[in-house]
Formats: sequence, structure tokens, C-alpha cells
Amino acid sequence: MNDRSVAEPFDAVDVIRTKRDRHRLSDAQIDWVIDAYTRGVVAEEQMSALAMAILLNGMSRAEISRWTAAMIASGERMDFSSLSRPTADKHSTGGVGDKITLPLAPLVATFGVAVPQLSGRGLGHTGGTLDKLESIPGWRASLSNAEVLAQLEDVGAVICAAGAGLAPADKKLYALRDVTGTVEAIPLIASSIMSKKIAEGTGALVLDVKVGSGAFMKDVDQARELARTMVDLGTDAGVRTVALLTDMEVPLGRTAGNALEVRESLDVLAGGGPRDVVDLTVALAVEMLAAADRPTGEDEVRRALADGRAMDTWRRMIAAQGGDPDAELPVARETEHVVADRTGVLAELDAYAVGVAAWRLGAGRGRREDPVQAGAGVEIHAKPGDQVVAGQTLLTLHTDTPERFDRARDALEGAWSVAPAGTAVPTRPLVLDRIR
Amino acid sequence: MNDRSVAEPFDAVDVIRTKRDRHRLSDAQIDWVIDAYTRGVVAEEQMSALAMAILLNGMSRAEISRWTAAMIASGERMDFSSLSRPTADKHSTGGVGDKITLPLAPLVATFGVAVPQLSGRGLGHTGGTLDKLESIPGWRASLSNAEVLAQLEDVGAVICAAGAGLAPADKKLYALRDVTGTVEAIPLIASSIMSKKIAEGTGALVLDVKVGSGAFMKDVDQARELARTMVDLGTDAGVRTVALLTDMEVPLGRTAGNALEVRESLDVLAGGGPRDVVDLTVALAVEMLAAADRPTGEDEVRRALADGRAMDTWRRMIAAQGGDPDAELPVARETEHVVADRTGVLAELDAYAVGVAAWRLGAGRGRREDPVQAGAGVEIHAKPGDQVVAGQTLLTLHTDTPERFDRARDALEGAWSVAPAGTAVPTRPLVLDRIR
Repeated sequence: MNDRSVAEPFDAVDVIRTKRDRHRLSDAQIDWVIDAYTRGVVAEEQMSALAMAILLNGMSRAEISRWTAAMIASGERMDFSSLSRPTADKHSTGGVGDKITLPLAPLVATFGVAVPQLSGRGLGHTGGTLDKLESIPGWRASLSNAEVLAQLEDVGAVICAAGAGLAPADKKLYALRDVTGTVEAIPLIASSIMSKKIAEGTGALVLDVKVGSGAFMKDVDQARELARTMVDLGTDAGVRTVALLTDMEVPLGRTAGNALEVRESLDVLAGGGPRDVVDLTVALAVEMLAAADRPTGEDEVRRALADGRAMDTWRRMIAAQGGDPDAELPVARETEHVVADRTGVLAELDAYAVGVAAWRLGAGRGRREDPVQAGAGVEIHAKPGDQVVAGQTLLTLHTDTPERFDRARDALEGAWSVAPAGTAVPTRPLVLDRIR
Repeated sequence: MNDRSVAEPFDAVDVIRTKRDRHRLSDAQIDWVIDAYTRGVVAEEQMSALAMAILLNGMSRAEISRWTAAMIASGERMDFSSLSRPTADKHSTGGVGDKITLPLAPLVATFGVAVPQLSGRGLGHTGGTLDKLESIPGWRASLSNAEVLAQLEDVGAVICAAGAGLAPADKKLYALRDVTGTVEAIPLIASSIMSKKIAEGTGALVLDVKVGSGAFMKDVDQARELARTMVDLGTDAGVRTVALLTDMEVPLGRTAGNALEVRESLDVLAGGGPRDVVDLTVALAVEMLAAADRPTGEDEVRRALADGRAMDTWRRMIAAQGGDPDAELPVARETEHVVADRTGVLAELDAYAVGVAAWRLGAGRGRREDPVQAGAGVEIHAKPGDQVVAGQTLLTLHTDTPERFDRARDALEGAWSVAPAGTAVPTRPLVLDRIR
């Protein structure tokens, strides 16, 4: 009945109403609304109303699958079929101190599986892989498709910025969701992640779905639903996909911040590093190798960290993108300490609070166009369950701009506590579930 | 935790999330979001996400009241306290063939109550009062506040365009809701209508809430909720407010279209006219006079139509705004007829279909900036319950642009039917409920 747009097969208001009134969007409606949004025919305010209706009323598996396909169709697809080896990629839904991609990509590559890790920048309290690597002098995030292919053949691993040509509808929609309170919709999160990963052309994909205070998903059931939705989408698109649900109640490892996390990753690649970071890197590598049809035992994978093979690949990967693997990493100009108020056992250390503190110290950005400080962040000297003595440093705060310390300390207020010595501190396992 | 807008007390995303997650918006959040939206700090796409969240999750009475107050505070308020007589206004939620304002305003004014009828233009299948009056040669809709006051003192009735200064937040929000599928939210409909009426400064207000296929509200319970919400808002703001729920399953009267409806209104003002139009005009006049503390019996009100007093006031009202009350009204260039397919009794005539047909013939607009045809519309020769004979004209379609006939006929497909002679056709009463 609407006479507004005679040249278009649908009217945006009718599509919005369909979802608003809890009906199923047809394939043709989905194809049109994504395409018309990309062309600018569906306006930002119309898409945000639709996104809110999707968030509150949900989408069926078939709707999500079609929505994802429409986002893929909005741009180009990469093709790795010319490579002499299989491809496997990993995607994390984002957590505090999650630097796993850095040791993981070169580690997997040492076993003859190419890792095309197209990554993003951080926004809010979780860091971005590209921001971390950009703390390495000379390293550049932008590669052409031809450079990506050549580096995959040559080195076996590439971590770079996703080109603007992949799923442009998703880029536009993600920016919109970010400012309209519509980020937290499982169908939209799943289709956003999977449209990019499927368009990227990886043959196998391992998803690290984080659960807990420092993650997007605070709740295990929601995280499981997201993981299940993404595994289904990957499988439907012919990508061998598996998901691990992993803990994000406490920060991963002992650093949150760009250069701080690169340094910790180098420890792991040198055969050391915090146990949780090593364990998760190995678990994800085993999954990626299995999904890429190169099944490899955990011991063999650990050996590649211990004997320097993964480090060799790392050095070649960094150098191939202009980075100097031997350069000094930036250090923040100022530090302050958070100390234990009494002797006992550290009972908790909230991941979200540490993430916000690192963000406020300058490690993250509030707006997409903001710069980040390479040296800023939080260094963690004790994790829950560790013995601590009164006056001992628990956290070191790093920043170039000391006026930021106060707000970082505010974020950490109530985020940690010391219990009497001998108190048993329950800990969650690192890997909570596996979905395939 | 959001660092985006340090100069603003709230962040739009936090406000959206509050309603999205089914929490109550605080007074301060509401005041800020309306003000910041008016200033352009809250973007259109943010307000549309909030509007969808309000549509799907609702608002409490206190939230709606605050929302309305914030919209009033976004602009100027008119002040009629200098007038020598009380004021009463009427608002209809819009229906097909609803020309009641035209005879009603001068009728009420004849009893010493000033009627400041600030009106709008039509959009979609319901006509706009200003569009109807603009079919009178010379008549102008735009008056300054001083002209409105002078005419109210002088003539006692004014029908004109609401100034841009009243509730500008509502104007912006209404235009947004129209393109984002968020029109049908009772809290937003109620606050939109009531913010303008309260800002307008009327002392008494009678609401005509239409129910049925040709109305915004198809369902009596929803209409009652809207009426109750608006009566509460008016009462809270010190406006004596009463609502009638009235039927809109069939068109009101025997015309839908601009000049066609003016002609029918003149019949009513001359003491004739269709019974439903007369009855509703009288019922609303009785309510307005009572709410304005000038209680007047129905018989006395009917007398003012029969003896020409209301017509005298109409002529002065039209002339005061540059219109020629004796001018010939425009007539459409072309007509076609819809005829009865058999003999019997007209069983139904769907108001929505007639509204869409009139719209498509040129009486209404699809976009705010479109022109309307003064002569276009639908003339109704039989109403449900009337005896008809095969071949008799049921509807006359009027337009200046005959290529529109086909789509108007499409709209009328299945909208009427003739039952065998003697069939009892149930009819709803005109006034379904009264809420105060």
C-alpha cells in the first residue's frame, strides 16, 4: 500500500514492520534490505530500527543464514584455492589480555597450514590485534590481496587489516550498531563475524567464544547460543568450523595493553609465558590443525613453541610486513602501582575492570578515529589463587599521560580483593565447552 | 564507563540500552535525550533505535508523562489567558472521511467557547484538515500567534497550521517515526499528540480516538489504552481532557477527499448532511462545551446548526483567513463509477480501502512534500445496511489524473459486498466508549 519507492521491490518500513511484528523476514526482503542499505537507499535510521527489532525479537537459523549470505554478497570474496596448503583461521569474540592470535598464527603455520588472520582494531575495553602489532616499529597492517596471498605461500601466516572490499555491508552495519545500542544481538554478532570469515575464504575456522565479565557474553548459555549459531553458519557455508567457549572472568595472561601484550607473546614464542596463555594457544592450534586436516598432537604443538620453530615463523611474519622483530618495544613514560591492602590470597581480579583501566590509561579508544598509546596498559603481578603479602604490587599501571591514572584507579575500585590466607579460591577451567 | 561525550551528562547508547533491557528511563535521561535530540547531539539513528525499543518494551505512565513534558519544553508554549472566554480543542487520531473539525469549530464557538484548532496535513490514507480547507480559494493555513489570538477573540474559532515553535522535538521525532516503522507505539503516539495540545495552551480538550479498519488503532482495547494514556497526560498537565472512542470500520459520512469533504461540511452547517457526521459533531460539541465549563444540551447544540448560527461563524472564520466562503469549490476533471454487482443490501464498505482509494486518486500524499488534488476523492452513495439494486452507483471516484483510476479500483477490490435482500447487517454504534 506504500507508494514511496516505485523503483524498489520493497519498502524499508514494511521490512521493519515485519520483524517488529515478530514475523519471519523473507529471503527476498533480507537480500533487498542489505543491498539497499549498502547502496544508501535504506537510511541509517531505518537500519537501526530494524537492528533493534532483530535484537528484541530474534531471527531464525534460516534468516540468519540468509542475512549472512547477503552481507557476503555485498562485497568481494577472497580465494585461497591457489595456495599449496590448506587454510585455517581463528576468531575470538574479544577479551581482556587476549593476545592469543600473536603466538597462534605463526605456531599453526609451522605445521604447513596457512593462517590468513584478517583482524580489526580495538574499540572499548577489549584490545585489537592490529593495535598490538602496530607497537612493533615499522610493522604495517595494510596489505593488498596479492600481498596476502604471497605471504601465505611464503611465510604461511599473515595478520593484517581486513580489506574494505570484504562484506562492506557489515562494516557499515557494525559502525551503526556501535552507536545505537544494537551490538548485543546474537543474530547480528554471529552474521557480522561469519560474513567476514566466510568472505575471507578460509577453509577451516576455530572460534574462541569468550564468557565472563571481560567478554561480550557474560553468560554461558548466551555464549553457547552464539557459538552454536556461528558454527551452524560456517558449516552451512562449507567452512569446517568449531568453537571453544573459554573463560573471561579474569584477564588472560599477565598483561593488557598493546606493547605489553606483544612482549608477553614473545615470551610464549620463546617457550615461556603465562600458563593460561600457553594452554589456550596450544588448544586452539590443535583445533585449527585438526579442522584443516593436519591433525597434530598437543605435545608436538608444544614442542614447536619450545624449540623456536614458531618464533622463527613469527620473525619472518613480522619482517614480511615491514616490522623489525629485534626492535625495542615502546615503554610508557609513567607507571603507578596498585598494592595489596593485606596479606592473604588474591580472591578475584575482574577482567572487565582491568580492561576498562587499560582503556582509560590509553591502550584503547572510545572512538574509531582515536589514536592509542603503544606503551599504555596494565601489568598483572598476581592472579586469583596467588598468595600475596600486604604492600605487594598487584598491578602496574602504564601510561604516557599521568592525568589518566585517577580514572584508571576508579575503574579498578572493588575489582580485586584479598581473602585471608588459606581461603580456597574456586577457579573456572579455561575451556568451558567445545561446540562443533 | 563510556568516554565518548564528556560534555554531556548522558550517553545516547546508555539511554537506549536502559529501555532495550526493559528498565525505567529516569527523568534526567528523558529530559536529556529529548533535548539532545532536538540539538542534534543524539543522532537520528540513535533516536530510531530508542523509539523501536519503546515500541517493543513500553513505557510507564510516569515515563510517558515526563517524555511529554520534555517535548513541550523543547519549544514555546502559547498562552490564551488574555482571552475573554474559555478555550476548548478537539483532536482526532484520524480516520477516513473525518471532516468533523470543519463544522465543529464554528459550532462550539457560537456558544462562547474559543476553539484554537491547530491542525496538520494528511499523510497516507487519512486526510488532513488543512488540506481540506485549502481547497477553499484564498484560504491560508499559516497565522502568526498574534493573528491566532485576535481571531479567537473576534470570531471565536481558528483552524490553522501549528507553528513550528510548538514542540519542535515532536516534529522531528514524528518525521523519524514515519520512516522507521515506529509510528504504532502508544506511548509515542500519546506523547506526540498531547505535547502539541498542551503546548498549544487549550484549557479543555476532547479526544476523538478512532477504532477500526480506517483508523490507526484497529482494536478497541488498544484504542482504549491510547485514550486512557492521553486523558491521563492531559489531566496531569491541568487540561480538562475527555476521550470518545468512535467507530472507523466504515468511512464517516459520504465523502473522502478535500473539496468533497468541505462540501459535506457545508451541508452540515446548513442544517443537513449525513446523520453520522451530524451526530458525531454534536456529541463532540457537547463534550467540549462541558469540559470548558459551558454545559449545553444536545438539543440546543443541534439548534445552532439548524438556525444558521454555526454557518455564520464558519463564514467569518473562513473570511478571517482570506478564504471566500461563497467561492465555487474545485471539482475534479474526471469521474468513474463503482456499481453494485447485484441487488440486495450493502453488507460492508471498508474504511481503509476507501481511504487508500481516495489517496491514490490524488486526495492524499505519500511524501510530506507532495501536493494534493483539491477535487480528488471518493463519493459514497450507499452505506452498509442500505438497499441497493444491480447497476446502481455505489461510489464515484474523482481525480484530475485518470491514470490513477486503476490503482484506486485495485484498493477497492473486496472492500465492499452486496448481500441478498433482507440480510441483517450488524452495525457498530458510532460512539463506542467515553473515557475521562
